[in-house]
Amino acid sequence: MTPKTIAPGGTLGIVGGGQLGRMIALAAANMGLKAHIYCPDADSPAFDVAAKTTCAAYDDAEALTRFAQSVDVVTYEFENIPRETADLLAAHAALHPSASALATTQDRLSEKDFINRLGIPTAPFRAVDTPDDFARALDAIGRPAVLKTRRFGYDGKGQRIIRTEAESDRNAIFAEFGGAALILEGFVAFEREVSVVAARAADGSFAAFDLCENEHRDHILAVTRVPAPGIAPETAQAALGIARTIADALDYVGVLAVEMFLVREADGAERLVVNEIAPRVHNSGHWTIEGATTSQFAQHVRAVCGWPLGDPSRPGGLKAEMRNLIGDEVEGWRSVLAEPGAHLHLYGKGEARPGRKMGHVTRLKP
Amino acid sequence: MTPKTIAPGGTLGIVGGGQLGRMIALAAANMGLKAHIYCPDADSPAFDVAAKTTCAAYDDAEALTRFAQSVDVVTYEFENIPRETADLLAAHAALHPSASALATTQDRLSEKDFINRLGIPTAPFRAVDTPDDFARALDAIGRPAVLKTRRFGYDGKGQRIIRTEAESDRNAIFAEFGGAALILEGFVAFEREVSVVAARAADGSFAAFDLCENEHRDHILAVTRVPAPGIAPETAQAALGIARTIADALDYVGVLAVEMFLVREADGAERLVVNEIAPRVHNSGHWTIEGATTSQFAQHVRAVCGWPLGDPSRPGGLKAEMRNLIGDEVEGWRSVLAEPGAHLHLYGKGEARPGRKMGHVTRLKP
Repeated sequence: MTPKTIAPGGTLGIVGGGQLGRMIALAAANMGLKAHIYCPDADSPAFDVAAKTTCAAYDDAEALTRFAQSVDVVTYEFENIPRETADLLAAHAALHPSASALATTQDRLSEKDFINRLGIPTAPFRAVDTPDDFARALDAIGRPAVLKTRRFGYDGKGQRIIRTEAESDRNAIFAEFGGAALILEGFVAFEREVSVVAARAADGSFAAFDLCENEHRDHILAVTRVPAPGIAPETAQAALGIARTIADALDYVGVLAVEMFLVREADGAERLVVNEIAPRVHNSGHWTIEGATTSQFAQHVRAVCGWPLGDPSRPGGLKAEMRNLIGDEVEGWRSVLAEPGAHLHLYGKGEARPGRKMGHVTRLKP
Repeated sequence: MTPKTIAPGGTLGIVGGGQLGRMIALAAANMGLKAHIYCPDADSPAFDVAAKTTCAAYDDAEALTRFAQSVDVVTYEFENIPRETADLLAAHAALHPSASALATTQDRLSEKDFINRLGIPTAPFRAVDTPDDFARALDAIGRPAVLKTRRFGYDGKGQRIIRTEAESDRNAIFAEFGGAALILEGFVAFEREVSVVAARAADGSFAAFDLCENEHRDHILAVTRVPAPGIAPETAQAALGIARTIADALDYVGVLAVEMFLVREADGAERLVVNEIAPRVHNSGHWTIEGATTSQFAQHVRAVCGWPLGDPSRPGGLKAEMRNLIGDEVEGWRSVLAEPGAHLHLYGKGEARPGRKMGHVTRLKP
């Protein structure tokens, strides 16, 4: 499908009002578009930079319809949008990425099935719908393993690690999840976590940013380094190829991120295992604002508006390091401002609660 | 005077809702500030990216007072603010640049007097308040010369060139200006037009971007090239020194631009003559968004918020070229988007009238 081209002056509808929606809106404004943000939270950071805002629930069919009808194209900043919401939006406006790409990637089970069918490895996994399923899955996969909700998890929420036999009281653990659909995933003994942030346009053109290495703390991204150090060029190339295979198979339009594990074999060989797909701009792509010719946010806007993709290369070949400012780390903003060459980004959020992403800092180096 | 430091989460008041106010607001948002735009035009481009807006006249004392009281600091995007407006704002909020810096620079006569008193050359000039003044000024300065309104001119508006004796009917020409206070300026036989865009903080710290060469068409900036080519390094250094002398003498806080003529003497020596001071971010600084570590807009926000100035250097030593998209040139937006490495900026303005600045394109080259 070739989407209609949105002309400058048009309006981009963005579902979700967090920092990702905010940064998409800022990129859209740079290119002469208006942003209309839809979010249930009255103090959404993205509201502060939008030409129009709708504050309503994700199941408010009337508000969703009005929103979709008032914009030229709809996109979203997060994958935890109910399927019904996506379908309703798509009935009234062009929706990119599509409702089907969203459905495939927002459920860990369908996502891993989809990836494996493309011949791309993931961690071993089993669906867990009952306590008996849980027991069988543990037998098949072994320990340690991670029991996760299939949907609506982020930053380690909705997960529980099962390390020992003692932690395997299947009824009690199963009950903790309150009946949500679950998946048990095996552990991957990885050396590094990497990600590919890339864009695909409706005409099939594809542009990937350089491979990122990601360091997590307490399940939250802490640092991204680009290009990912200590990895063979062929492996980095293979990672970009995996992202393209996935994007093509989803007939994807927009920016997506593919998180992968780099496994080092005993003989030193490098192997990639896909962890998950984020059908949206991604925290590991924030470095592109200063570190790439086209930022991931501008790239996403280009793709969803039917515009040509931009150049994803790093100008001057500079290396980038992005550090999140989480919780009270944001209190160091003044020393970041005083550091030559440090790029401070703050999201305009109120309270600096533990684990809350308040901003990030990007540093470029030769 | 040390201004109070504005913390992220605070609100920056911006008087004026055009593209400069819009780009200041976008830079402020990147650093976690809210923008409140004050502008009489309901369809101001800056309104689309602001957390708050006030649409009211520049002489609406009640609206100005409410605006100033609702923000943490006030700045402005253009120098044609009535003195009374600036004084009223300054009575209710920190105003940067100050009302006195604005008063000095918004009147061509006081501006040139001020510059000459610093020992910095300008074109020859005479105040013209009557037809007799005009005759005497023409005798003193010779032809060609330019008769200008002292205030409220921009992009060649409020100007008339006097080339020949036949054009010197002093009564008729004087009458054309409708009684506005005037200045007659001599022509400078310049080789190039250059500008320094620089920032000064309240503590006296100063950071200049590299010297820009500017090419005008029909009195409107068309192209800026950085670093200005074909100019001796000592001359470029001297230009930055002139900007600092001016900023210090104004006790300036914020970004300013100093436009200069480069005159080539018969023996090849280079001489600088100041044309005018813009007490604000400037079109010849737009290249800094991608071409400098800190953009002029981020730098202005830093200065007026009492934050440390950022690094003005060009990352990777890349050269920048900025071209304005004026009037229907904006219709070429799609081919700019398709050009690798071209950075398209559009201002979200409605109609592409002749002479209207609709956007710009920045290209970086090794």
